Formats: sequence, structure tokens, C-alpha cells
Amino acid sequence: MSTTTFLINGVSDALISPLDRGLAYGDGIFRTIRVINGQPIAWQAHYAKLLADSRRLYLPCPEAASWQEDLGRLFADQGDGVAKLILTRGIAERGYAVGDHAIPTRIVIRSSLPLYPDRNASHGIRAYLCKTRLAHQPLLAGIKHLNRLENVLARQEWSDTVISEGVMLDQDGLVIEGVMSNILIRSGTILATPDLERCGVDGITRQRILAIAPSLGLIPAITSLTLTELMNADEVLMCNSLYGVWQVVDFNGRTWPLGQLAGRLRQFLQE
Amino acid sequence: MSTTTFLINGVSDALISPLDRGLAYGDGIFRTIRVINGQPIAWQAHYAKLLADSRRLYLPCPEAASWQEDLGRLFADQGDGVAKLILTRGIAERGYAVGDHAIPTRIVIRSSLPLYPDRNASHGIRAYLCKTRLAHQPLLAGIKHLNRLENVLARQEWSDTVISEGVMLDQDGLVIEGVMSNILIRSGTILATPDLERCGVDGITRQRILAIAPSLGLIPAITSLTLTELMNADEVLMCNSLYGVWQVVDFNGRTWPLGQLAGRLRQFLQE
Repeated sequence: MSTTTFLINGVSDALISPLDRGLAYGDGIFRTIRVINGQPIAWQAHYAKLLADSRRLYLPCPEAASWQEDLGRLFADQGDGVAKLILTRGIAERGYAVGDHAIPTRIVIRSSLPLYPDRNASHGIRAYLCKTRLAHQPLLAGIKHLNRLENVLARQEWSDTVISEGVMLDQDGLVIEGVMSNILIRSGTILATPDLERCGVDGITRQRILAIAPSLGLIPAITSLTLTELMNADEVLMCNSLYGVWQVVDFNGRTWPLGQLAGRLRQFLQE
Repeated sequence: MSTTTFLINGVSDALISPLDRGLAYGDGIFRTIRVINGQPIAWQAHYAKLLADSRRLYLPCPEAASWQEDLGRLFADQGDGVAKLILTRGIAERGYAVGDHAIPTRIVIRSSLPLYPDRNASHGIRAYLCKTRLAHQPLLAGIKHLNRLENVLARQEWSDTVISEGVMLDQDGLVIEGVMSNILIRSGTILATPDLERCGVDGITRQRILAIAPSLGLIPAITSLTLTELMNADEVLMCNSLYGVWQVVDFNGRTWPLGQLAGRLRQFLQE
């Protein structure tokens, strides 16, 4: 186990009530943020997303300063690691109705950066095609909420450590995302990523890459993405806020030569 | 607030780690059981369902004796109330992969029976047609798991206290369940309830009613149920383990006279 510390509503050594709706119903949202030298990377984008997600669930979100104060305390050593922010609807009586008195629970957890093999970045990764398919729920699509059983089931499908990520399709067989990542494909000068209006998490790193694309001579596109289109792409990329970008070089019976896009994007994302 | 007490892995006054996967991902299941004179009603059926749900999520389930010991301690006064049982996959490192070391978290919470109006049983209820539609996810359908944001969103759609329950449709517009209940309709001598292979919670009280039906001269049926079929039914019932059975007498622009089935089923369920 890595060293993990956390604050709950700003209190260290506090814990969560079993009556918290985050536990009872997964009634909350979260963020996973890379921290370098005590600084949360892309903080503005992460907080904007936290706020947007909270609004979609009618969840009151604490102001940025509260989160930043927590982050400052947990990373007072100016160290590196991962900050996980969780916001739940708070403690409530049993039952789905949201009471007037619930005070949201603000959780910030510091942990070590996962030990991803260096070769994932330098040589690309092998990915697995998950059998678990994502359900269509437009009301929750895009939100990084605490209802993640589909991802849990998908991640249980493989244990071989040579596989670094799983590709998830939706109920119609369209490509949506990775278990812990978003997906992008380059076909010529088009950089496409699946539409997430019906399922999937609209991640910050995906958003940042779409914004960067034109400066790399690429045309960003949000599309319905079939598995065939992905298999025929010139490059397949996966991304999240912790590892940045990896190229998929081995997936579903095809291999791809290592290209330069993943590395270039990693550089941009660190700037 | 009612008086609520709980045990976590058999320990009173314990709390939940923010690293518990029940909070992080809704990675767990639960049961809500009515307790009368210290005795959990339909315990065998509830435990069988807990076990069945845990197997579908590959979640190790503590033996019945552990839960029963917790229940005995929380209801040592032989009182009445509600027992909520929660089983999560336990504390783990960040990330979706299930580690080898996670020890499931067993939670038992005692609370008061909700103050349902007597007239819900004596006069029937008014129900509301929810706009929130249930997503199709066969891998999770039927399971009473901790990913309940759809129910949370649906319950937020109304605040008028004359409405006692909400009827939820699936993405295809088929009737599936109530926000906190299952649904049955009587049409002549057929007692039908929606098929739950794609979404919805397969509740214990629904199962018990289907088993009782023949002794009441009714033919139980599990069907695809359209809203039109429900509107044309002779009686519409909702059920759960806490209130038993209520007849819907006012829904979606139609009223129904109060019949006798709900009352008869309540009697059977208490035996």
C-alpha cells in the first residue's frame, strides 16, 4: 500500500458516515488530478468540470478555495502524487428523497502516482476489448459520478499485466472510452474522439487534447466511432489525467507502429 | 432525524474509510428489511438475494450468521424498525482493479420505519410518471447495487407530498418499477410484473407476491409491460419490503376504485 492521507470537509483523520449518500447511492462526483511539486495540473479545468458535473446532479459544490486549501495542506511538502476529489450529497435519512438539510461531503485524498511501466509511454500499450458494454443514460453521460460498477466489471475481465487498458463499447457496439481513459484516433489529419452524449466520461485530458489539436495541424472531431473505424485508424490514443497519453500499439488482433503523436501530446499537456 | 445506530464489520461507532470502494465506485450491494419485534421479516429470502447479488458482482459475501449477529445486537430491545444491510468490496488502492487484499465491508444500520401515511394503505396512493428513464444494463439488472443515481434523479422530480411514489420507464418507454418499489398490475386473473432482465431491481416482496398469487386465484406473469397496458389494468400495485403493498388509485390522469388485492397481499406478507 502506498501512503495515503485524506481530509474530509477539511478535517484530517475524519471518516465517512455509513449514512452518507455517496456510499448509499453513489450520489456524488469525483476528480482524479495529477500533482507535481505540490501543484495540481490543469486545476482550472478540473474545477470547472467538478462544478459542471455537480450542477447536472443538482449537487451544491464548495467553492474552489475550499478544495485548494485542502490540496495545499495535503501537499504542503510540495511533493508529487495524485489528488482525488470526491463530492457527495452528504449524510441523509434513509430513502432516495434529498432532504433540505444535507450538507455535501468534501473529500480530498492524496496518494502516490500509480507505478505505470515507462514502456507504456516509450513503446505504446496493449489494450483489451471489454465484453462489458456501457448502458445509454443521457442524464448521466459525461459526468464523472460515483456510479462506476460498469467500469469495475470491465476491469475485472483481465488480469494479465501486459494489458494496460480496456476498450469499452456501448450497447450498440460503438466505441466509447477506456476503463480509466478516453480514446482518440488519428486518421490522416483528423483527430476524432467518441461522442459522449449517451454514455462515457468526458475527461479533462480529452478536452485539453481537442483544444491543442489545431496547433498540431490536426482537425478535432467528435463522432460516432465504430470499432471498424478504430481498427483502421492510423493511430489510436488513450488518455487520462494521470498518465497523460499512451498510444495503443496492439489491440484486437492488430498492431500499429509507434507514431509521434502521443509523445507530442504528452509534452503539450505538461506545459 | 430518527435515531439511527449502526455496526461496521460488527464494530459500533466505527465509520467508513474514504478509500472504501463502496463510496469510490458504488461497488457493493444492499438490502432494506423491515424488523418487527426484533425479527427481520423474510430473512431467508433477503439473505438469499444478498448472496445472489454478491455473486453477480464477484463480491465475497459474509455468512448469514455474521449479519444475524449484527441484527441481534442492533435490535436487542426486540423493537421495530428498518435494518439496512450494505456490503461493499472494501478498502482498496485507487483504481478500478480489484486487489487481492480487499476485505469486504459489512454494514448494518438500524433506523425507524418511515412515517408513511396510514391512508396509503387504506385509500391507495397517487403516483407520478417520472421523466428519468432507466438505462438498459443486463449485467446489473435485477441487482440491488449501490449505483442508484437514476433513482436519485427520479426522486428529485417531485416534492408534492400527495405523491407517494414515482413510476419509472426504461429507455424504450416500457414500465419497469417504482423509484423505491416494484410494480404489479392485475388484469382479470392475471397478475403481471415487468421483466427485469435489462434494468430494475428484482425485489424480495415482488418475488413473494408472485409466489403467493396462485393461492389467491391469480396467475403470475413476468412480461414486457407498456404504459398503455398499465393504464388499462384493473388494479395497479406497488410493493417493497417496508410498506408491503399499496394500490395506485391516481396516476397519469386516471383514477381507479380501491380494490381488495393490496390489502389481502399485505395480510399474506405479514404471515
